[in-house]
Amino acid sequence: MTTLAILNCDVLKVEHKTASVAAAQDILIEKEKIEKIVPSGSISIADNAIKIDGHGLLAMPGLINSHAHTPMVYFRGLVEDVTVEEWFNDYIWPMESNLTEEDVYWGMLLGIAEMIECGVTTVADHYFYMDQEAEAVKESGMRANLAWAVFGHQGEKGLDRTVEFIRKWNNSVDGRILTWLGPHAPYTTTPEFLKLVVKKAKELGVGIHIHVSETRDQVQNSIRDHGCTPVKLLQQVGVLDHPTLLAHCSFATDEDIELLTHYPAGIAQAPKTYMKHGVGLAPVVKFLKKGIPVGLASDGAASNNTLDILEQLRLMVLSQRVSLTDPLALPVGELLDMAFRGSARVSGFGDSIGDLKENNLADIALIRQDGLQNFPCFNPAVNLVFSINSSQFDTVICNGKVLMQNRQLKTINKDKVKQEISKRLERMTQRVKGKSIAFYPS
Amino acid sequence: MTTLAILNCDVLKVEHKTASVAAAQDILIEKEKIEKIVPSGSISIADNAIKIDGHGLLAMPGLINSHAHTPMVYFRGLVEDVTVEEWFNDYIWPMESNLTEEDVYWGMLLGIAEMIECGVTTVADHYFYMDQEAEAVKESGMRANLAWAVFGHQGEKGLDRTVEFIRKWNNSVDGRILTWLGPHAPYTTTPEFLKLVVKKAKELGVGIHIHVSETRDQVQNSIRDHGCTPVKLLQQVGVLDHPTLLAHCSFATDEDIELLTHYPAGIAQAPKTYMKHGVGLAPVVKFLKKGIPVGLASDGAASNNTLDILEQLRLMVLSQRVSLTDPLALPVGELLDMAFRGSARVSGFGDSIGDLKENNLADIALIRQDGLQNFPCFNPAVNLVFSINSSQFDTVICNGKVLMQNRQLKTINKDKVKQEISKRLERMTQRVKGKSIAFYPS
Repeated sequence: MTTLAILNCDVLKVEHKTASVAAAQDILIEKEKIEKIVPSGSISIADNAIKIDGHGLLAMPGLINSHAHTPMVYFRGLVEDVTVEEWFNDYIWPMESNLTEEDVYWGMLLGIAEMIECGVTTVADHYFYMDQEAEAVKESGMRANLAWAVFGHQGEKGLDRTVEFIRKWNNSVDGRILTWLGPHAPYTTTPEFLKLVVKKAKELGVGIHIHVSETRDQVQNSIRDHGCTPVKLLQQVGVLDHPTLLAHCSFATDEDIELLTHYPAGIAQAPKTYMKHGVGLAPVVKFLKKGIPVGLASDGAASNNTLDILEQLRLMVLSQRVSLTDPLALPVGELLDMAFRGSARVSGFGDSIGDLKENNLADIALIRQDGLQNFPCFNPAVNLVFSINSSQFDTVICNGKVLMQNRQLKTINKDKVKQEISKRLERMTQRVKGKSIAFYPS
Repeated sequence: MTTLAILNCDVLKVEHKTASVAAAQDILIEKEKIEKIVPSGSISIADNAIKIDGHGLLAMPGLINSHAHTPMVYFRGLVEDVTVEEWFNDYIWPMESNLTEEDVYWGMLLGIAEMIECGVTTVADHYFYMDQEAEAVKESGMRANLAWAVFGHQGEKGLDRTVEFIRKWNNSVDGRILTWLGPHAPYTTTPEFLKLVVKKAKELGVGIHIHVSETRDQVQNSIRDHGCTPVKLLQQVGVLDHPTLLAHCSFATDEDIELLTHYPAGIAQAPKTYMKHGVGLAPVVKFLKKGIPVGLASDGAASNNTLDILEQLRLMVLSQRVSLTDPLALPVGELLDMAFRGSARVSGFGDSIGDLKENNLADIALIRQDGLQNFPCFNPAVNLVFSINSSQFDTVICNGKVLMQNRQLKTINKDKVKQEISKRLERMTQRVKGKSIAFYPS
């Protein structure tokens, strides 16, 4: 029986990499799932169902952030106009040594609030003190794949703590929380450590979320140190035998790409981060041609400055077209397929989200269509990609529950979160010589 | 005597390519000019002055769109996923043959409404039926440099019509309207025609706004046909002896750049257009190193999809950094200097706008600072460049007059404009075989 109904909205569908819009539909939701999508008024709806007026709104699958470090919103805009090495070694990693469990909780809530405002219903997060992230996800109503980041120098004891987290939280909170293992990267671990991770992944039956080949130097250093690329190394130690979320992978070689087609791996891409830091862009069109799933991601707001996936969508197509000098690269339908289904698969949620259809989970973002940047509107999908911005998201539903309506957050007290963040900023941004969570090799 | 006062706002200053913010200031305006900027409350303000509560808002110079075809908002999002040649020859130029004077008037109003909502107070526009644009600028309260586009095949008669327009409108409407000559481009005119333009420019004492070297092919074709680059051709025919607004100029050679340093020319850059169409990026850092003024521009919304200059600002730095693989290119202060003072100079307004200081024209945009994407806010200038979007502009003032307050437009009836546009769309977008305003050579 219908528990929630969105009445008379337009619905964005992306099928066979072609986007279309069905006007004037009712979306019926039963508990956490989409029950039916029907022409508006064609089915009578139970009196006690919650009803949302969707007139003028365009419904789409909730956006998915397939790689983030959400609590890094603390550092938004703090470290700018520096090199990647300075960014890590002089600022971010020293400051992250200040993190407490409670800091992570409040930072996660702030980031989730921003994501909900941007139409994002799912995040694949990679950070520390993940019990705290899980609590924030639980309260906020979002969906998440949580991976506790671990460096090689933390050894088996460090890894075991993340295993404990997985045992506690995997498939919990009405299925909204998945948990994967989170070894930081090949360059901050060892092959032996990664083999240990693989062993745990097998025991737990979970996937692995890891940074890989983010810069050209990382690939060259790996060839120097291990005789192979980071992707090849992941294959050799067995990581790729498990569902794997490869964050970045921008400097995958042609051989890496060929290799990845044989494994259950997906790639998360955060174009704004790569652009801002002058790192270089990934061969995204090649990934897609080979059938490797690609998802959109914000990375942390310390590098990306927002957690805005619609912005990443636009930057993805703009950056790829200019770097390939190809105006036909990533046509709108293919791009939206990446944003919705690609991101869902990459993030470990398969086909259960990323498409508004019967029996899928009810993760839905509704965007206003009456702004000037959406007028005229020959094609709502085109305007979504190229014109309007995330300020137009009006209503956000996750797992059949309303998280935002009329731009009002329903599950998070923004003022309280801002207060809590404010009183932590001074301590969080201190840098003490010699105190750092890791070292970035140059 | 103060006629308008903005009370207790923060003020963004960009000096010596460094951005800073003065908190809690009163901006006093006398008629069309900034009278004083003082710490809030330090001067008593005339009772009959209009007062705006600026608390929580960041004041900056009104943004400047240094090259647009504003009425092309009609075609927003209509022609996507095509090559540049198809875009011009199969769609845009055939459709523009449908334009009537009245179409231009309503299209200009729609575009101006969008620009005001995006904090833009000045536009350097290049289009047709410019009397109609001038009427729309007059009514809306914006500032503009208007150039009537003319192709070589229109001959002296076509040019004379644009001269007539200049005689009627130059320096009119309280000085808000400048008018320049608008030969379309070297590739759509002849050297003889351009010499005629130069003669008229000299007689009228006005500048010249022209497209140049937008693609690599245009440069190669010019070398083939004229034995020199388009920029060199402009020098040879005398265009560069006059104040010149070079739209795009993305494929300027090193010799072109050296040459431009000797002339009163500026360059307008619309990065989103170049990215979306896979055209390639300009050597912007080289331009700036050589002291050539560069401004931000949207081009037409048919290619750019918005008239949002804040979006162009962000895309400028992101696209340059990734193409140069240099995270230190275009630091925030230099970028804002380009956006404000660069755009002002390029657009023909010298130093009279683009900087909030005594005696400058009172063109001011105030942006909200309480959104989540602006929190935390270690540096408002950084967040302006990398985090927040144009939906946050709250109040816009041009020439001492309020054009938007609390996001409500004061001079334009949006509903009426949308109605007028809607009833024209079907006719405007018809394509009749053989009917086109020009032909784009491939």
